[in-house]
Amino acid sequence: MPVSRREVLVGSVACGAATLARAAEMPAEVERWGIWEASFEGPATGNPFDDVRIAAILEGPGKRLRVPGFYDGDGIYRIRFSPPEQGRWRWMTDSNAAALHGRSGSFEATAPSKGNRGPVRVTPDGYHFAYADGTPFRQIGTTSYSWALQSDAKCAETLATLKASPFNKMRMCVFPNVPAVATDPFVRTGPGLKDWDPARFDPAYFRRFEDRIRRLGEIGIEADVILYHPYDPKRGYSDMQRADDERYIRYVAARFGAFRNVWWSMANEYDLVPTKTTADWDHLFQLLQAADPHDRLRSIHQFDVYYDARRPWITHASIQNNSAVLDDLRAALHRDFALKPVIFDEVAYEGNFNEPWGWLKAEELVERFWYGLVGGTYVGHSETWEPNRDARFSWLGQGGRLTGTSAPRLAFLRRIMEEGPTPGFEPIQAWWNHHVAGKPYEYYLRYFGKDTPREWPVVLPSGTGTGHGNTPPDRGKDPIALRADIIDTWAMTITPVDGVFRMSPRGDYELHDPARPTIWLPDKPYLAVRLVKTQG
Amino acid sequence: MPVSRREVLVGSVACGAATLARAAEMPAEVERWGIWEASFEGPATGNPFDDVRIAAILEGPGKRLRVPGFYDGDGIYRIRFSPPEQGRWRWMTDSNAAALHGRSGSFEATAPSKGNRGPVRVTPDGYHFAYADGTPFRQIGTTSYSWALQSDAKCAETLATLKASPFNKMRMCVFPNVPAVATDPFVRTGPGLKDWDPARFDPAYFRRFEDRIRRLGEIGIEADVILYHPYDPKRGYSDMQRADDERYIRYVAARFGAFRNVWWSMANEYDLVPTKTTADWDHLFQLLQAADPHDRLRSIHQFDVYYDARRPWITHASIQNNSAVLDDLRAALHRDFALKPVIFDEVAYEGNFNEPWGWLKAEELVERFWYGLVGGTYVGHSETWEPNRDARFSWLGQGGRLTGTSAPRLAFLRRIMEEGPTPGFEPIQAWWNHHVAGKPYEYYLRYFGKDTPREWPVVLPSGTGTGHGNTPPDRGKDPIALRADIIDTWAMTITPVDGVFRMSPRGDYELHDPARPTIWLPDKPYLAVRLVKTQG
Repeated sequence: MPVSRREVLVGSVACGAATLARAAEMPAEVERWGIWEASFEGPATGNPFDDVRIAAILEGPGKRLRVPGFYDGDGIYRIRFSPPEQGRWRWMTDSNAAALHGRSGSFEATAPSKGNRGPVRVTPDGYHFAYADGTPFRQIGTTSYSWALQSDAKCAETLATLKASPFNKMRMCVFPNVPAVATDPFVRTGPGLKDWDPARFDPAYFRRFEDRIRRLGEIGIEADVILYHPYDPKRGYSDMQRADDERYIRYVAARFGAFRNVWWSMANEYDLVPTKTTADWDHLFQLLQAADPHDRLRSIHQFDVYYDARRPWITHASIQNNSAVLDDLRAALHRDFALKPVIFDEVAYEGNFNEPWGWLKAEELVERFWYGLVGGTYVGHSETWEPNRDARFSWLGQGGRLTGTSAPRLAFLRRIMEEGPTPGFEPIQAWWNHHVAGKPYEYYLRYFGKDTPREWPVVLPSGTGTGHGNTPPDRGKDPIALRADIIDTWAMTITPVDGVFRMSPRGDYELHDPARPTIWLPDKPYLAVRLVKTQG
Repeated sequence: MPVSRREVLVGSVACGAATLARAAEMPAEVERWGIWEASFEGPATGNPFDDVRIAAILEGPGKRLRVPGFYDGDGIYRIRFSPPEQGRWRWMTDSNAAALHGRSGSFEATAPSKGNRGPVRVTPDGYHFAYADGTPFRQIGTTSYSWALQSDAKCAETLATLKASPFNKMRMCVFPNVPAVATDPFVRTGPGLKDWDPARFDPAYFRRFEDRIRRLGEIGIEADVILYHPYDPKRGYSDMQRADDERYIRYVAARFGAFRNVWWSMANEYDLVPTKTTADWDHLFQLLQAADPHDRLRSIHQFDVYYDARRPWITHASIQNNSAVLDDLRAALHRDFALKPVIFDEVAYEGNFNEPWGWLKAEELVERFWYGLVGGTYVGHSETWEPNRDARFSWLGQGGRLTGTSAPRLAFLRRIMEEGPTPGFEPIQAWWNHHVAGKPYEYYLRYFGKDTPREWPVVLPSGTGTGHGNTPPDRGKDPIALRADIIDTWAMTITPVDGVFRMSPRGDYELHDPARPTIWLPDKPYLAVRLVKTQG
């Protein structure tokens, strides 16, 4: 979804005599969920990253927020704010530098332009996502760790690939993990890999990164920004001391947090970072939460040990587990543990790598997405296809082109999702071993994976209970009429089943149609059946 | 396992002139993990439950503990202590009542007698249980909520049933939930169900209950004591005010905690108690932990919403979920979330009740135990068989006799467990979708449930990784020789497979024997295969 040119408004307020004149030139309006940015000239000596603090107090309709700013080099300080409400916003700066303190002004947050649906939030039911305007966000993610750190040409190729793809979320690392053009987030102090100063960011590195975030936003893709990873101990960006970590977290929060498509992923495979304990991660999350007035989504991705997704600073579980999404009920259990939305961000990848995490067939990857859907969860893609079987240079590492065959099937899946219940698919009576999802009495989806039953008994749970729970189905609901489609998830075909299923109670807990007890299925794997309420 | 008569030693120390004389008569020794009990005469006026505090400071080999006492009525106060170490223990009382303050003495904790293996603890690996002497505790639990509140004759029948059964843990409520002989833990104040004084316990009620705990101990059964439940709102014992709950928790901790077979289950279906929030349960757990110097195992059992088993005061997850144990990998995920041992204490019951939670066939209940085992977890039994289909009067409600057919199969299962790896069965490469448990390169167990494959490909993961984890199998381990048994878990037969499987690598991640690629199985459900290392 293209973002209006108008929505990012940049005002520049110089210190000294010219201040009021330049301030008066600042744009008077920005659209809701766009970015209001004010820039100020301030101290350039010493270490501005440590010596100077700047923030703005923003007062708007029913809200008062403190928004930290950041130093962008060359004596320029910036404050970025994405207004969560339409209306008048007044601002005033607070700084320990006299030149930056007490500046003030106001602007109007106007109605969002077409395609601006606001940031993605967790839905009130607790297990799905929607844009701030209420549109469901049907997560079909992908990962390309260091795509944003590649050349502009390579990045343009990646963006073109994404634009033609079904993906609406990209997992991407701030720090490089494979060969990249941009490798130095911090100012270098010598020739060695570890010769860098954690107290001095290189603004150009972050400017490049946020340009990638912005471009993703322009094509409607969420940027799941991974702050740490364990893959580069030689440079050691993920092995900083606590005070340096805190400076870094504050910097990215102030710099990136106003982009409405930003999500925070604290780390990839956090439990493989040897220099940080769970207590350290907890601390950094609390710091991030406090440093981010935009309150973007927050998660963390694990290798072996699931992080406790019930922690209050976690908005959704980000899970790596490839066998948990080979059964919808295994997937659904993750909701019962997290009590939050669940994204299986890593379920092994389509490709030709020589280890199990990177050698899935496309069929196997697509299968995981479908089981995840029926489990009421979301799944993520990536691919490792590479001529020399070197995953570093694949889509997973650097982006570029997709050469696998799963993406079109995921586009088909996304269509099925978008035609389904809102805000998402709920497992129906999962704790009683039913394998259907949707919305009781309106929509039922069953997926067969590799199984090839010749006929499927059309027996549905009679209850209205969804999600987790021991509550057995309700008794005595009214009969319903359903029409059915046989979905070939691999061939991407939808074949209507003739006629109507008039479902009535069978015993206390089930619905069936005595006249049409089964649906015959073609002898193929990867089929699904959906049943949708009809007036028939 | 019978408990030596000598191990429960009761000393009575009266106040006043006779004190020293009687103290001198106190037994000079008690065996380790037995109960040292001192009784004192003290104030009987006012409300001793609220007015009088008594505790003893115990000093023994390398340990110093504060052990709260309790009022047992008729002016008698008791302190119970189970010495965790052999050796000399010195004690001194601390009380706000002069008559109870400053009493002191000492005793010798001697070697445990035969059959006294100490309390059950979580094993160092984190996922299993063992007695304090190191003997693995292979949990085969059952539930009879109000058995302890029935007549002595009925209780004797229950105990005789248990003695002949495979069960080694009994879940039992302090408060009645079905018709019972004992219904009044608190002093009654009038004729109505709610006419009772939460500030005054009826010692006789608790004396009866602890007699049941003691008798369970005498036959080697752990008492999983359920402190609250939602089933009796008319009496409302689970709906007390916070100060009353605190008094109650302290009382049971002081009174029951010294019995080495006591486990604490904070509540049954905690989330159905409308008068308590999760914050309330958290508080009561912290209180219990502080009030129980014996540090007995602590869990809580849910209806719909899993309690967060990672909370530090939880020693193991107690789970109700009947479909999670229809797949070993679903069961195993609970370990990954809890990072602690998991007991599926309720998986629906064998019986003839008219709702799904109480109408399992014995086959279906036994199946859940086996899947739980392969998932590295433990499962609990109960049955609802009752001539009039009234579960209140079944084993589940009142105890008595078992009439189902699952118990003998669970005895057989326990034998298989005891012949297996210590401290328990670990899932092997579960995150890579392998369905085997045991101990890598020594013991593998595969269970087929209702499936009836005619032949099973003997392909095992080559790795040594157990439990949760994305780590793929190790490469290049030495070949091993395994012998195999086909286990009919229902018929309770073990049929050796002739010869030896000489397992060698197939690719990087699997073991097989090219000469013997499969095992042929009889055309029956509920089979298992175990493969055990042999020198052959």
